[in-house]
Amino acid sequence: MELAEIVEFFKGLQDNICASLEALDGKVEFHEDPWDRPEGGGGRSRIIENGKAFEKGGVNFSHVHGPLPEVLKSETRNASSFHATGVSIVIHPQNPLVPVIHMNVRYFEMPPEEGFEGDCWFGGGIDLSPAYLSNEHAQFFHSSLKAACDKSDMAYYPKFKKWCDNYFYIKHRKEMRGIGGIFFDHLKPDDKKSKADLFQFVKDVGESFVPIYQKLVEENISKSYSQKEKDWQYIRRGRYTEFNLVYDRGTHFGLKTNGRIESILMSLPPVANWKYNHHPEPESEEARMLEMFQPQDWAK
Amino acid sequence: MELAEIVEFFKGLQDNICASLEALDGKVEFHEDPWDRPEGGGGRSRIIENGKAFEKGGVNFSHVHGPLPEVLKSETRNASSFHATGVSIVIHPQNPLVPVIHMNVRYFEMPPEEGFEGDCWFGGGIDLSPAYLSNEHAQFFHSSLKAACDKSDMAYYPKFKKWCDNYFYIKHRKEMRGIGGIFFDHLKPDDKKSKADLFQFVKDVGESFVPIYQKLVEENISKSYSQKEKDWQYIRRGRYTEFNLVYDRGTHFGLKTNGRIESILMSLPPVANWKYNHHPEPESEEARMLEMFQPQDWAK
Repeated sequence: MELAEIVEFFKGLQDNICASLEALDGKVEFHEDPWDRPEGGGGRSRIIENGKAFEKGGVNFSHVHGPLPEVLKSETRNASSFHATGVSIVIHPQNPLVPVIHMNVRYFEMPPEEGFEGDCWFGGGIDLSPAYLSNEHAQFFHSSLKAACDKSDMAYYPKFKKWCDNYFYIKHRKEMRGIGGIFFDHLKPDDKKSKADLFQFVKDVGESFVPIYQKLVEENISKSYSQKEKDWQYIRRGRYTEFNLVYDRGTHFGLKTNGRIESILMSLPPVANWKYNHHPEPESEEARMLEMFQPQDWAK
Repeated sequence: MELAEIVEFFKGLQDNICASLEALDGKVEFHEDPWDRPEGGGGRSRIIENGKAFEKGGVNFSHVHGPLPEVLKSETRNASSFHATGVSIVIHPQNPLVPVIHMNVRYFEMPPEEGFEGDCWFGGGIDLSPAYLSNEHAQFFHSSLKAACDKSDMAYYPKFKKWCDNYFYIKHRKEMRGIGGIFFDHLKPDDKKSKADLFQFVKDVGESFVPIYQKLVEENISKSYSQKEKDWQYIRRGRYTEFNLVYDRGTHFGLKTNGRIESILMSLPPVANWKYNHHPEPESEEARMLEMFQPQDWAK
């Protein structure tokens, strides 16, 4: 398949996900900011704020291209130009009983040219950062991702689940950001998988977002919650902020390559708290959640 | 002077500053957490939270020593052991009309040993990150720092003020964190300045904290403020968080050397907000503040 087909899929995915999230929210719609990249390409950032379900969220599509930036030259030596396209999502719900979800699906290509045979790969992932979550929903989340992976390759889920657990680790806290999910990068066509096979996998991942998140929102959004639960959500959002600003490769790549700052930092929560030396009380729901964040075998 | 004298000064400075801030607050006192560093030394973290004047603040003393950590070896080649001691302060006030203040004074020493003649230096600074501030108070702040610098060397203030402006720049926002102040590092004894001279300078900087901040608190704390002004404070605190997690060298040094995480991250605000694509309205007080953050000649 051609680049154009991948780009069209990502655009359509953004449209479908935004429509589903708007229907789930019922109160507010996404606001779109189209933007151009001076060196080539651009994107459509779509933001939802102050909704009934969603306190702040972004569903961003971008397709950027042009001369290969200096920071990418190490891994791509002989290439002089590139295309990068994808969809990135972060949703911060109002209700602390509804988990934060993050998804990214992306495609990177350096066209063939004199002295360079060309290269391309897919990357992406979905992960969940709940303040609270039932074991049933954690199992549902991971089992859904496993099902999406298994359609392509039985080896994918265990491998990408572990990759995710390794990635979303807040080293300085010795804490996971959430319950993980899947993370993959540099998926390149080879003898076993054609480019079309890999694209199908990325499609399956992207299309798993709506049914997964719809269930997690619908089954939690009507539950009542206390200020104490809201406070814990704010603490966990502080951790989310720490991860994204200190470790997240996508964020750092964006900051270093002079990306559109509001699109990069749309991932930051609307409100976050830092309390000095905060630790959940032993045996509390919050302590149970920290236990739950330990990587474990959810997809049984 | 000996290391012990410097350590004693820093401890006394922490005591004096905490006593003054408690008197200013009038409602809550500092909570002290003493901590030990497994490799040698430790500190006393002192935190104030939910006060009348201060929403969250830390005044930390530490004196750590032992074998030189790997991350420091590049600049210190032949040394095998070190001492680092200092006081670090960040205060986030309740009232958005009272500015956030940050101060650090520190001393680093590698004792002489076989094949190494020894090395030592002082560093530090004070800077202000207001949500709102009058021009008079900005002038007062910088003039006070200039006076503290001028006692040692007329060249210090212009040099250290510029260093501060270069340091507290949020590159990805193309914004300053606040109105700056002074920043200095690697002040080493030489023909012109003895170690005692440099220590006197650091004492003058440290002792300027109370009279400076006392005036800024006392003259602003009783002013009434609106939710709109509190919201702007929360936005500026988001910027403060971005700076500290993305750029601050002290924070990164602490995270990389497995420092005491709650002492390192005490600098983070109690509450911070991120609104998508937020810009102050033209001609507003908030727009005036962004103008004010542009480096300028305050100490006239």
